[in-house]
Amino acid sequence: MMELINDLWFKRRDIVSDGYDESLDYISKTIPLKIHEIPSGTKCWTWIVPEKWSAGEAYIEDLKGNKVLDLKDCPLHIISYSLPVDKIVTRAELMKHLHTNPQRPGAIPFEFNYYERDWGFCIQHNRLKEFTKDRYRVFIDSKFEKGSLKVSDYTIKGETDETVVLVAHLCHPAMVNDGLTGVTVLVDIAKEMSLKTHHYTYKFLLVPETIGSVAYLSQNEDIIPKLKYGIFLEMLGNNNIHALQLTRQGSTRLDRIARYVMKRELTNFREGPFRKVIGNDEMAFNGPGVNVPMISISRYPYPEYHTSDDNPGIVSEENLNESKALILEILNILDNDYIPKRKFKGPVFLSGYDLWIDWRINKKLNENIEQIMLKLEGDKSVFDIAKELNMEFNDVQNYVNKFFNKGLITKV
Amino acid sequence: MMELINDLWFKRRDIVSDGYDESLDYISKTIPLKIHEIPSGTKCWTWIVPEKWSAGEAYIEDLKGNKVLDLKDCPLHIISYSLPVDKIVTRAELMKHLHTNPQRPGAIPFEFNYYERDWGFCIQHNRLKEFTKDRYRVFIDSKFEKGSLKVSDYTIKGETDETVVLVAHLCHPAMVNDGLTGVTVLVDIAKEMSLKTHHYTYKFLLVPETIGSVAYLSQNEDIIPKLKYGIFLEMLGNNNIHALQLTRQGSTRLDRIARYVMKRELTNFREGPFRKVIGNDEMAFNGPGVNVPMISISRYPYPEYHTSDDNPGIVSEENLNESKALILEILNILDNDYIPKRKFKGPVFLSGYDLWIDWRINKKLNENIEQIMLKLEGDKSVFDIAKELNMEFNDVQNYVNKFFNKGLITKV
Amino acid sequence: MMELINDLWFKRRDIVSDGYDESLDYISKTIPLKIHEIPSGTKCWTWIVPEKWSAGEAYIEDLKGNKVLDLKDCPLHIISYSLPVDKIVTRAELMKHLHTNPQRPGAIPFEFNYYERDWGFCIQHNRLKEFTKDRYRVFIDSKFEKGSLKVSDYTIKGETDETVVLVAHLCHPAMVNDGLTGVTVLVDIAKEMSLKTHHYTYKFLLVPETIGSVAYLSQNEDIIPKLKYGIFLEMLGNNNIHALQLTRQGSTRLDRIARYVMKRELTNFREGPFRKVIGNDEMAFNGPGVNVPMISISRYPYPEYHTSDDNPGIVSEENLNESKALILEILNILDNDYIPKRKFKGPVFLSGYDLWIDWRINKKLNENIEQIMLKLEGDKSVFDIAKELNMEFNDVQNYVNKFFNKGLITKV
Repeated sequence: MMELINDLWFKRRDIVSDGYDESLDYISKTIPLKIHEIPSGTKCWTWIVPEKWSAGEAYIEDLKGNKVLDLKDCPLHIISYSLPVDKIVTRAELMKHLHTNPQRPGAIPFEFNYYERDWGFCIQHNRLKEFTKDRYRVFIDSKFEKGSLKVSDYTIKGETDETVVLVAHLCHPAMVNDGLTGVTVLVDIAKEMSLKTHHYTYKFLLVPETIGSVAYLSQNEDIIPKLKYGIFLEMLGNNNIHALQLTRQGSTRLDRIARYVMKRELTNFREGPFRKVIGNDEMAFNGPGVNVPMISISRYPYPEYHTSDDNPGIVSEENLNESKALILEILNILDNDYIPKRKFKGPVFLSGYDLWIDWRINKKLNENIEQIMLKLEGDKSVFDIAKELNMEFNDVQNYVNKFFNKGLITKV
Repeated sequence: MMELINDLWFKRRDIVSDGYDESLDYISKTIPLKIHEIPSGTKCWTWIVPEKWSAGEAYIEDLKGNKVLDLKDCPLHIISYSLPVDKIVTRAELMKHLHTNPQRPGAIPFEFNYYERDWGFCIQHNRLKEFTKDRYRVFIDSKFEKGSLKVSDYTIKGETDETVVLVAHLCHPAMVNDGLTGVTVLVDIAKEMSLKTHHYTYKFLLVPETIGSVAYLSQNEDIIPKLKYGIFLEMLGNNNIHALQLTRQGSTRLDRIARYVMKRELTNFREGPFRKVIGNDEMAFNGPGVNVPMISISRYPYPEYHTSDDNPGIVSEENLNESKALILEILNILDNDYIPKRKFKGPVFLSGYDLWIDWRINKKLNENIEQIMLKLEGDKSVFDIAKELNMEFNDVQNYVNKFFNKGLITKV
Repeated sequence: MMELINDLWFKRRDIVSDGYDESLDYISKTIPLKIHEIPSGTKCWTWIVPEKWSAGEAYIEDLKGNKVLDLKDCPLHIISYSLPVDKIVTRAELMKHLHTNPQRPGAIPFEFNYYERDWGFCIQHNRLKEFTKDRYRVFIDSKFEKGSLKVSDYTIKGETDETVVLVAHLCHPAMVNDGLTGVTVLVDIAKEMSLKTHHYTYKFLLVPETIGSVAYLSQNEDIIPKLKYGIFLEMLGNNNIHALQLTRQGSTRLDRIARYVMKRELTNFREGPFRKVIGNDEMAFNGPGVNVPMISISRYPYPEYHTSDDNPGIVSEENLNESKALILEILNILDNDYIPKRKFKGPVFLSGYDLWIDWRINKKLNENIEQIMLKLEGDKSVFDIAKELNMEFNDVQNYVNKFFNKGLITKV
């Protein structure tokens, strides 16, 4: 998964930009993305799609022409969606437009200003002391023009139209953990899931943050009723425990399955309610009037967040693989779960139906035979039973499948 | 408010009596009371309106004609609704009819016996030792006759017929904190509220305790469905913290608003369930078959209760004003609260609608913008939102009103 | 009650057997049992009624003809439903068929194998060391033949067809506390209840464990909807505190009444959820597709369980009587409880209806008059009120009956 990261991370992936479009093209070679284009100026519910933005040369120089800062060195050196500028400014005025992060003085901060526009540069806090002259020339050759915001999706059809959506955002120039790690895990999961058939239909979405999801949903309202669950993925490569952010509903089957898998598979993780761990596109999918229950899985927080230190050096294939396995297991249970409903009456004659489990073969199952038998009333799923009895989903699934094969239950 | 108290407190305000009627007339000069007369003998649900009672001379004297006790000195010297008597009794028999309060030996107790009648005197416990003679003459010139129980109400019409009722009791001769303080605060609130328009209709009721409320409700059953909330007021002048008694339902909007206001406005207060703080007419309004949620606000308990020490000296204008402000704030929230319901979809484009609040202007509001936006589903009122977010009602109201003014919400 | 125990305990009461049938005949002389016969081979839901089983001679002897173990000495010496056998076996093979209880080495264990059949003997663990020979002759003259499983019931008709069922099991040869104590308490309760009229119809069932209940219910499905509550009785004679096992539903009126009675009548008892205290026929009555709420009352556990030490010496008439009184009180409340519903409005004029209770007569009742009056809305039974107010059921019943007699309430 690091290959995708290494190839794309340094691109100028602003929300409507050539760098973003190039990144989409790159991924299209791996999975067959369908690309939705929404033109600048389109009203998307309460939002409006911004113009495409690009930046040519940009620098700060002293009046002798010595460059003090040059965009060529790093895409972060100007704020995303900066206005163009070309003038001589006093040091005092320059300082108002020079963004730094005093908490991380050796790194260039990532700044953006999509809607209340201004011009601006970003620089290491440590470097401020270099600005000793009285006046500087500031130059940004940026351009705003009609363009198209691009949202892409890849759909794997299942037995049903009911859809599980996975979302990651592809924007944020030169950021790695914030965005690209979610993208690469999502792409890998999509590839793996395309090899099998599933109960649910799966949609894998790559979007520019927030406006991308709002634009996609508002232009495709007919899809919304089919979306049953969602997972937002990002910040999965750094060295921190996983953080599960619950859906707005807070206790859907997806919330419970995700918590169950994390409890069983991980030594440690943390969990928080909707919008209390980390904010992202779940606010669009799971927000007012949309209400698709969407969890978010990340390894937030991490100290390099939104600085030039969020680079390939802080993420690892091992972490990405752990996250990927976790999400696949959540999807496995979600997809295979069903509600068994009893056809029999009275306690089942276990030995007569070969349903007796010797404790020497599976002690936990042996102890819970009767409890499982009592929970087949059609009001609990196989997962619910496993969770209530603190058992492995697979063990319960296999045992309940036996009841199905003997004609003792139906699937609701 | 002390003026009303000073003018009325010493009157013989028994439940059906001239003193009670005079007090009503006095208050009618301040607010335009409508007076309902219910004749003695009228069946009121399971109750019957008692006769009018009056007392002329009453005294105890020794056989030489020396008066040992004289009603002229204090209205409390005979029990309310005492039977007439005129006979020579032994000291032993007298003692059976002489009521004292040993816990407060310097004060005359307030005693009454409306339904199981007897004759009786009340006296300071300290004075019992003065009764050294063998025999005494007891004389009470009391009279029972057909009369009318009087319940008065003052109504301020609102935008809707849905009514909030405030109740205080005007009976209890020579008592001040117990009854009259509730009356004077109620009258002042009525005067203040008459100056503005309101959502709810407000009814201000002055009644003789219990029988007054039962009589009023039973003779005006058509009003009951309109009564949405009620507040009973009494004992508001003494030096003690406020006591909030919840409604029988226990968690109505009124209960929650009253608790919220007390928590925010008072250093300290206590709270208890229905009928566990102090018993009054909420048992009629909020009782079986009526069910109007009625809280009670008082400063109960106080040591002078039901004795001649409950006089103007133990109450203060300052305490009355604090209680009045508290109740007005409860009514303010109750009246101005509404349920906002979202018309928008997705997260609102805040900067596009000028709904962004800078943290330097209102930090608490800034932190809660998103939470407020998520709570506009039509299942919570503005007050609910303020309470859940631990915010000022006015702040939330003003912010949600902005959504209304931008056409982003409706009022349910 | 010890008489029945002494007369029946040593009988060979296997599930379909002559000893079982003789025991039923014996009890039929005390209460008029109706006997349902279900033939061997009958399909009962998922179960099949087994054959009748009987055992003639059975022994182990050495090759010189010395008997080492003889069924004549104790019915427990062979496993119930043992296959017949007659052969010479090595000591090693014998040991595989010789059952002991190492935890209770001086006692013969009770073993059975109704469905996965084998031959086998049971013996004191201490005696294993006597088997020093290389080979032994094993002989069991057992017989399997068509028979009838017998379930018996005794019905006391009440005012309604709604039925409370009490169940005990009569099987288990030579066991006393496990089975017979429940039987004798059940018979005594039946005799006592037959003397009075009741609201509910009562059914007293004696069955072979599990298969008896399954057979009865599956052959009488029309009865099931009438069964409102059930109590399973067993292990009531030993010296241990009572154990209340709740119904599957967990909080039915019966659960709450049983807990209330045990809390009030016993110094100590324990309580557990369905199937977590002791497993018995409640799994048939309260199991899948039947759902009759059935509690179980026992004094489980006890160390002599399922061994030859479970004999008349470990049970006492005193314990049986205590359990009987407890169950009768549970049934008394269940039968006499009703839901009162207010006809009056407002607080009741207590002194006018002679409903005032002086605190000197009944302090607890005096303090709760108002609370009782507030709970007559038709959503609580007399028992609910007593429980909520922590009062004696009889006190509340008598007081609420007064309201009924005055025409102030109806019975829902």
